Amino acid sequence: MNQDIHARYMQRAINLAKKSVEAGGGPFGALIVKDGEVVALGHNRVTLDKDPTAHAEVSVIRKACKKLDTFDLSGCDIYTSCEPCPMCLSAIYWAHIDNIYYGCTKADAKDIGFDDSFIYDQIDLKPEKRSIPTSHILRDQALEAFHLWVAKDDKTEY
Amino acid sequence: MNQDIHARYMQRAINLAKKSVEAGGGPFGALIVKDGEVVALGHNRVTLDKDPTAHAEVSVIRKACKKLDTFDLSGCDIYTSCEPCPMCLSAIYWAHIDNIYYGCTKADAKDIGFDDSFIYDQIDLKPEKRSIPTSHILRDQALEAFHLWVAKDDKTEY
Repeated sequence: MNQDIHARYMQRAINLAKKSVEAGGGPFGALIVKDGEVVALGHNRVTLDKDPTAHAEVSVIRKACKKLDTFDLSGCDIYTSCEPCPMCLSAIYWAHIDNIYYGCTKADAKDIGFDDSFIYDQIDLKPEKRSIPTSHILRDQALEAFHLWVAKDDKTEY
Repeated sequence: MNQDIHARYMQRAINLAKKSVEAGGGPFGALIVKDGEVVALGHNRVTLDKDPTAHAEVSVIRKACKKLDTFDLSGCDIYTSCEPCPMCLSAIYWAHIDNIYYGCTKADAKDIGFDDSFIYDQIDLKPEKRSIPTSHILRDQALEAFHLWVAKDDKTEY
């Protein structure tokens, strides 16, 4: 019975992925559920919105946060038609989502031309070894912003 | 001389991080430069916008894409007051940015209470070993969306 519920939500995420392809987006869909209610539906909108961050999971997290009026999705689960890329996985962590359900794997995504696996591999490397040249400068000056944050009494932590 | 230019852009990113703290945001700023021109400025807006994905780098990538009317920031460099978290680093890869310049490190961010290092460690683990419980279901059905994508003749790749 419980498994049926998860399969039903996942099938909806898959249906969103299929509709996304028809609409001109990438083949990825996701939804967020809280307390047995669907909070938000999303699909990949990278090319439609000209926003490289508009993956299905990031899009549905943004929508759920707007709907629930919070930056903290504790108590929510995400169903996504494909294993989250590192951007989306990290967004799920930052949003404090409780559970992740996914369909296709990052290897499946690689097979149809998406860079998820490559980016997973890049993250593992030290900054100076990555394919995007990366320089570390002005750390002392940059730390001043962190000191301001630490000293601020009325800050909103997240 | 060339080093001076990078230091100047980085100092602007740091100034954005400081202003962000004053404005009630997190202590992070970033800017994107193309052909010697600043394309967009950004800072952390997680709590201001109630959007857990609104880190400085993701925010400035979205703004730059809007300004340049593209999802591909090839030819652009990013200056960020702190080493990108995995979400932002992946967004930089997806946006095809050419060069990254950063100030504080992920260890510095950890020292003032941000989860960047923890998320880097989580990404390294297999899905079933991560702190967020993760389930893999309905792969065969999910692959149908990928098959639609492969079969579509007029798709916009990204």
